[in-house]
Amino acid sequence: MNYRLIISTLGKVLLVLAALLVCPLICGLCYGENVLNFIITVALSLALGFAMTRVKCPRRDIFAREGFVLVGLSWIVMGLIGALPFVLCGDIPSYIDAVFETVSGLTTTGASIVTDIEGLTKGCLFWRSFTHWIGGMGVLVFMMAILPMDNERNMHIMRAEVPGPTVGKLVPRLRDTAKILYIIYTAFTVIETLLLWLGGMSFLDALLHAFGTAGTGGFSTKGAGLTYWDSAYIDAVITVFLILFGANFNLYYLIIIRRWRDALRSEELHWYFVIIALSVLCFSVGTYSLYGAKTLRYAFLMTLDTMSTAGFTVVDYTLWPGYAQFVIVLLMFIGGCAGSTGGGLKLSRVMLLIKSSMADLSQALHPRAVKTVRIEGKRVDNSAIRPLYSYFILYFLILLACGFIVSFDGYDFATSFTASLSCISNVGPGLSMVGPLGGYTIFSTSSKIVMTVTMLIGRLEIYPIIILFSASVWKRNRIN
Amino acid sequence: MNYRLIISTLGKVLLVLAALLVCPLICGLCYGENVLNFIITVALSLALGFAMTRVKCPRRDIFAREGFVLVGLSWIVMGLIGALPFVLCGDIPSYIDAVFETVSGLTTTGASIVTDIEGLTKGCLFWRSFTHWIGGMGVLVFMMAILPMDNERNMHIMRAEVPGPTVGKLVPRLRDTAKILYIIYTAFTVIETLLLWLGGMSFLDALLHAFGTAGTGGFSTKGAGLTYWDSAYIDAVITVFLILFGANFNLYYLIIIRRWRDALRSEELHWYFVIIALSVLCFSVGTYSLYGAKTLRYAFLMTLDTMSTAGFTVVDYTLWPGYAQFVIVLLMFIGGCAGSTGGGLKLSRVMLLIKSSMADLSQALHPRAVKTVRIEGKRVDNSAIRPLYSYFILYFLILLACGFIVSFDGYDFATSFTASLSCISNVGPGLSMVGPLGGYTIFSTSSKIVMTVTMLIGRLEIYPIIILFSASVWKRNRIN
Repeated sequence: MNYRLIISTLGKVLLVLAALLVCPLICGLCYGENVLNFIITVALSLALGFAMTRVKCPRRDIFAREGFVLVGLSWIVMGLIGALPFVLCGDIPSYIDAVFETVSGLTTTGASIVTDIEGLTKGCLFWRSFTHWIGGMGVLVFMMAILPMDNERNMHIMRAEVPGPTVGKLVPRLRDTAKILYIIYTAFTVIETLLLWLGGMSFLDALLHAFGTAGTGGFSTKGAGLTYWDSAYIDAVITVFLILFGANFNLYYLIIIRRWRDALRSEELHWYFVIIALSVLCFSVGTYSLYGAKTLRYAFLMTLDTMSTAGFTVVDYTLWPGYAQFVIVLLMFIGGCAGSTGGGLKLSRVMLLIKSSMADLSQALHPRAVKTVRIEGKRVDNSAIRPLYSYFILYFLILLACGFIVSFDGYDFATSFTASLSCISNVGPGLSMVGPLGGYTIFSTSSKIVMTVTMLIGRLEIYPIIILFSASVWKRNRIN
Repeated sequence: MNYRLIISTLGKVLLVLAALLVCPLICGLCYGENVLNFIITVALSLALGFAMTRVKCPRRDIFAREGFVLVGLSWIVMGLIGALPFVLCGDIPSYIDAVFETVSGLTTTGASIVTDIEGLTKGCLFWRSFTHWIGGMGVLVFMMAILPMDNERNMHIMRAEVPGPTVGKLVPRLRDTAKILYIIYTAFTVIETLLLWLGGMSFLDALLHAFGTAGTGGFSTKGAGLTYWDSAYIDAVITVFLILFGANFNLYYLIIIRRWRDALRSEELHWYFVIIALSVLCFSVGTYSLYGAKTLRYAFLMTLDTMSTAGFTVVDYTLWPGYAQFVIVLLMFIGGCAGSTGGGLKLSRVMLLIKSSMADLSQALHPRAVKTVRIEGKRVDNSAIRPLYSYFILYFLILLACGFIVSFDGYDFATSFTASLSCISNVGPGLSMVGPLGGYTIFSTSSKIVMTVTMLIGRLEIYPIIILFSASVWKRNRIN
């Protein structure tokens, strides 16, 4: 393990974090607030960051293992330091709660322990939503775009931080790929902010909801969420942008370089639209008696809100019929497309899981036939299927383990199960007690800690967090 | 597809069914009931059976595919014909309900749509529990033990009907293996009947509860289940026999031939005891305030009742704390040992799933290491792991599909999810509305049909039922 390089890179992450924290600081100043909490946190990040970047690292090479460790530690450090502003200004007095809220933001989960959102200082409100934007695309990918780092190192980091089973290199140099991704991401965010502002939101509300949509996080600036505005226009804008942020970003690059046809031919995109259509149909049929003329609007918004794993408060779906709630749980499992900012298992994984388990079934029934699995027109190698299967099983085991620990708080099965599903899939709300009108304040400290870890596991796709618990990683490498 | 052989073997199954139906007929006669319902059903089975066995089959060879189809069709036919006595005597007026109840019996699920169990005729009450005993070990294995059939054919049938990932040949001839299994099964049932009879149950109650325990089914003769007697002795006897019937029957054969050490060295057995111990601990801690001195008794009985997938009514665990209910759901997933009469995923599969997904995780984190998975001290070949993974994924997909359809009835998530988990794992009760005091009468006809199919899928481990839906199987085989 190349400890020196890890420490020095973590130092850089802290410097970037300090720079990012200046944004909420400025926001606080604009509103004439006391921003000492941000000043202290920025100073601490800078001090730690400079100290750590001074560590000399003669060897610059890293392996997949170091990539995982680095990404896992970076996110933990950001959660621990990023929680300080909430505690220092008293908005969230408990440090554990503040870490939960920050990690929930960074992982774009959007599960909240804040009960009086309107009571938060504007600076903290900004920081809370800004974490969605930072975490959606990944802070290390951001660092990659702005700092010079060598290509091979970037690949390991990108693989560990960008959601989805594979990482698409848009252009040969990863640094350029990271830049293109962030440019698209920023452009969409700016456009959405303007559209929401035009729709009657204040500029701050518009910006913070754009952050929440971009990262598919789901933190709002109001306790009532989107129902505060109850505007068809705002709901429509957010629905459209959730469709955009839930799709694979590579498609936008293809569109930019005018390869429209390739973009539209994407198999994952077709599945994405089919699932959206089926879910909208199901929600519409199930809730027409509740909403009348507003049915389609809510059906579309709730479908995208859940599938993109944003989890804004839209309607009280705990009043919905059983099958519509069941569809919500299914969408929570599936999540967004690979290479999007959405969570969950990712659509491309679900496609491959269904296709290959069907092929295996067919193989068992017709032993003499030879079955191949194809995704995006390409034959999927057998060696790629087993890691996918075991990824799903680990996902499921972690979901059950988290649910089991959470269930000690004494809530019903639906609450424990969907709260942990919501954490690992980075959605936010769940069913029963953690429905859209509920919150995560009800849980005990131990549950909150476990959920915090589960959110990180979900966002970073298992390995970068699990590796930190593996003793063998921390042993001195005998070869080096 | 060797249609002629399938028809002729199905005819034999019907003849065996007619013979088995004589038992409830005699029971009805003993109680002076009108047994016309059984006479008609026996006559129909005999007539159909004789007609079908007269089909000439020049080729006697079958492949794995025919084995699956044969077992799948046999169980469906038994469910359809076995439901007639309930309908004909008016005990269960709806035929769909009667098929649900019969299949629930045969698959040893024990989910019931009967609301007034004490109001059933004794003949039907006997038949209802007797289906557990027949289905526990499998009717085709029974046929194998009593009728001459060649060895290779038997292997395909046994593989399709006996629960668990592998079929252990105890002795070289499968017919002898089937005989040994049925002798052990019968001996345990007789001993349990006597012990329960001594404990104060009527002879009929004792026998029918022994059937319910042996098949790990869970139908009782009283609406209140075991709480009707509220006897520590009866609970203890049933707990001990659930331990026995939930373990791999191969172990008893090893004990009979005095290979004690090999039996006790079984890794699956160790896991079995460890899981039982942990669950008892969890239940005891969670329910001491409810039951005081009776805590251990209920904790042991509920652990075995759930893990063996019997599902007798023991206590109203919907009053238990959240984590104890969560453990119930976990135990429902795991189920009994391979080669037992229990349902669920089977312990040996769960062991292998956990071990190999951990090995794959370790492999992903340490790419240069070579990981091997060992079960029962033997290295598990990589080619055996992929079918296991896809089995789990299919299990999970079917569980979600069934839950989705059931959720259209409008009940909450916990009801729909645990009802379908209960069906695919062949347990019986679930949580919420299908708790120990609830029942399956609340569901619509379409849900009952889907659940009936799901119970069969669970009991026969997916392939024999799914193959019946595969169009390619029914196409005329071009080679023959």
